[in-house]
Amino acid sequence: MKDMTEFDGMEVGYDIPALPGMSEAEIQTPCLVLDLDALERNIKKMGDYAKAHGMRHRVHGKMHKSVDVAQLQVDLGGACGVCCQKVSEAEVFARGGIKDVLVSNQVREPQKIDRLARMPKLGARTICCVDDVDNVADLSAAAQKHGTEIECLVEIDCGAGRCGVTTTEDVVRIAKAIDAAPGLKFAGIQAYQGAMQHLDSYDERKAKIDVAVAMVQDAVDGLKAEGLECDIVGGGGTGSYYFESNSGVYNELQCGSYAFMDADYGRILDKDGNRIDRGEWENALFILTSVMSHAKADKAIVDAGLKAQSVDSGLPVIFGRDDVQYVKCSDEHGVVADPDGVLSVNDKLKLVPGHCDPTCNVHDWYVGLRNGVVETVWPVSARGKAY
Amino acid sequence: MKDMTEFDGMEVGYDIPALPGMSEAEIQTPCLVLDLDALERNIKKMGDYAKAHGMRHRVHGKMHKSVDVAQLQVDLGGACGVCCQKVSEAEVFARGGIKDVLVSNQVREPQKIDRLARMPKLGARTICCVDDVDNVADLSAAAQKHGTEIECLVEIDCGAGRCGVTTTEDVVRIAKAIDAAPGLKFAGIQAYQGAMQHLDSYDERKAKIDVAVAMVQDAVDGLKAEGLECDIVGGGGTGSYYFESNSGVYNELQCGSYAFMDADYGRILDKDGNRIDRGEWENALFILTSVMSHAKADKAIVDAGLKAQSVDSGLPVIFGRDDVQYVKCSDEHGVVADPDGVLSVNDKLKLVPGHCDPTCNVHDWYVGLRNGVVETVWPVSARGKAY
Repeated sequence: MKDMTEFDGMEVGYDIPALPGMSEAEIQTPCLVLDLDALERNIKKMGDYAKAHGMRHRVHGKMHKSVDVAQLQVDLGGACGVCCQKVSEAEVFARGGIKDVLVSNQVREPQKIDRLARMPKLGARTICCVDDVDNVADLSAAAQKHGTEIECLVEIDCGAGRCGVTTTEDVVRIAKAIDAAPGLKFAGIQAYQGAMQHLDSYDERKAKIDVAVAMVQDAVDGLKAEGLECDIVGGGGTGSYYFESNSGVYNELQCGSYAFMDADYGRILDKDGNRIDRGEWENALFILTSVMSHAKADKAIVDAGLKAQSVDSGLPVIFGRDDVQYVKCSDEHGVVADPDGVLSVNDKLKLVPGHCDPTCNVHDWYVGLRNGVVETVWPVSARGKAY
Repeated sequence: MKDMTEFDGMEVGYDIPALPGMSEAEIQTPCLVLDLDALERNIKKMGDYAKAHGMRHRVHGKMHKSVDVAQLQVDLGGACGVCCQKVSEAEVFARGGIKDVLVSNQVREPQKIDRLARMPKLGARTICCVDDVDNVADLSAAAQKHGTEIECLVEIDCGAGRCGVTTTEDVVRIAKAIDAAPGLKFAGIQAYQGAMQHLDSYDERKAKIDVAVAMVQDAVDGLKAEGLECDIVGGGGTGSYYFESNSGVYNELQCGSYAFMDADYGRILDKDGNRIDRGEWENALFILTSVMSHAKADKAIVDAGLKAQSVDSGLPVIFGRDDVQYVKCSDEHGVVADPDGVLSVNDKLKLVPGHCDPTCNVHDWYVGLRNGVVETVWPVSARGKAY
């Protein structure tokens, strides 16, 4: 439990949804709650898996944006550090004490490059991705200006269709430029296949990763032929980590959602055809919501709408209930079909969000629950850090 | 312009996207920018309209969550006050100096009721909605406990399908209970037809409002027969305010989106068949985003994804450009189709968000621009105030 003085002056229901020691019933809704037992089991399980497979695990901090969760992943899950997507987000983790931080993204804007180059002074190993040789000189100049070192991965677009180059020739060309640039260190390859993580079928996911692995292997071989070794060959998400782990070429995983789970990820199937939220991972993240109106007999209105979640990947699912269903979401209201009229005003429900990452990003706090009692309240430290 | 001391200690690119006096090129992206000239014209236009039609305008603060924008709507647009959807949000407006605040929603949870009952001590007239006679005793007890007065509107569900009662009998029953309850004052009717605001067709919207107006007129008559007068008959949004204004029964408008506009609202048609963002209202709100990768010739990747906006009502539209199109949104990336390769890395684009309300709710700041210079930076004061 945290030192309570850090909550001094905070008003429950205005600044913060709850304080440590409160019962679940006292939590102000809507807010995010974490089942700490489930969270710890998920973190431990992935940590054990990575260790058993000789992989480093660089946990994806963009999912939770929380220094506290990241630290738990280091301490309990043996994570080597974090990756995240923005420089401001990386600064939050570095300032919070995480010692190894990868911006798994391009950094192009001059002020962002300058901030990145200052990050090692916060005590963190600082790594970013590059997909354009024109970026190398800017990164190098900033690192030299600040007397620091930025490590660079060449990003391969192995199917996500966003940033990244697509040929070994381009990988080698950029890697050589990095290797030759003062203040920079060539550190390897970033190859995250984001587009396939949410395909339901295990075999379809495997087919996509087979393509990625072939591209990455070719790039690693091409680099080796030029005398360039990869310290990091990174990628892998909650829907694919077993493929990268057994690829013989990746050596770092970058999983995020496994720790919290969500409704969209939960629906994908493992190799035996079972949903991954029915055994592989536990739901540890919920939106706690309250019924605020039941003026119609068959419909309860709850207080979690679009400002308490992102519905880009579908509506939330009500945890542990088959008798009621979240059917509609507007700005501040959720409509819950309650055909048998089993809900009453002020009843609380736990929603599994459709998509955890952008849902966490609208909240300021995680309320950590154990045995029905608030054990901790963690800030969503990098919430809104989009720069 | 604000007193610059309030920005002391803030780091551009970490805490805040820009400071007053900066050029547009210096703004860190992604962030929200306001075209202050357009914003002021929108606010003035709706204010003039309401005044000319003898209507009060209680602007919807849930849209922008900003005390500064609300104050501008009072000062420049003659707004009588604000409405909003949550008690914590109402507290932000009351603490910020707005003198007349309606929570246009149900308040049921005991601690929220207690906070609401304390709100008049912040100097604000405090109003909320009621759709259940069981709520009356709780509100009354809290008002008496704090020695304050809560004004109550009976909420009619005139088509939104969320909170609210649907018969005049229920309206009268609840109104009488409010009228008889110590600490409470019956203040009228809340009847916002939210579900029709986004119907494209003017005639379809009118048909829906005709139903609402008939329900409200019947309720007002029923209340009058019991000696109950309505100080407030409130409703009306950006897609319907002309209907309520000419209904002869509504006397308060509650428009929100007109001030900022968004892509989804912009597509609805006025009575002449023109989009409302082509003359009636101007786009004043944008997500400023930068190109961060152009590794593929026909595709630019920008830095505004799901954590810079809500896509519940569709993808954003690139303002003032027909040659490029925002086609895909993931957590931190947007994919912009650039078939002719006209964009370069670090080019900035202005996105009109699909839905302004939940988009504003993920940002901490509005950067106010005039003539290409940052004139002001306003906090999204009630961001995350969802309790």
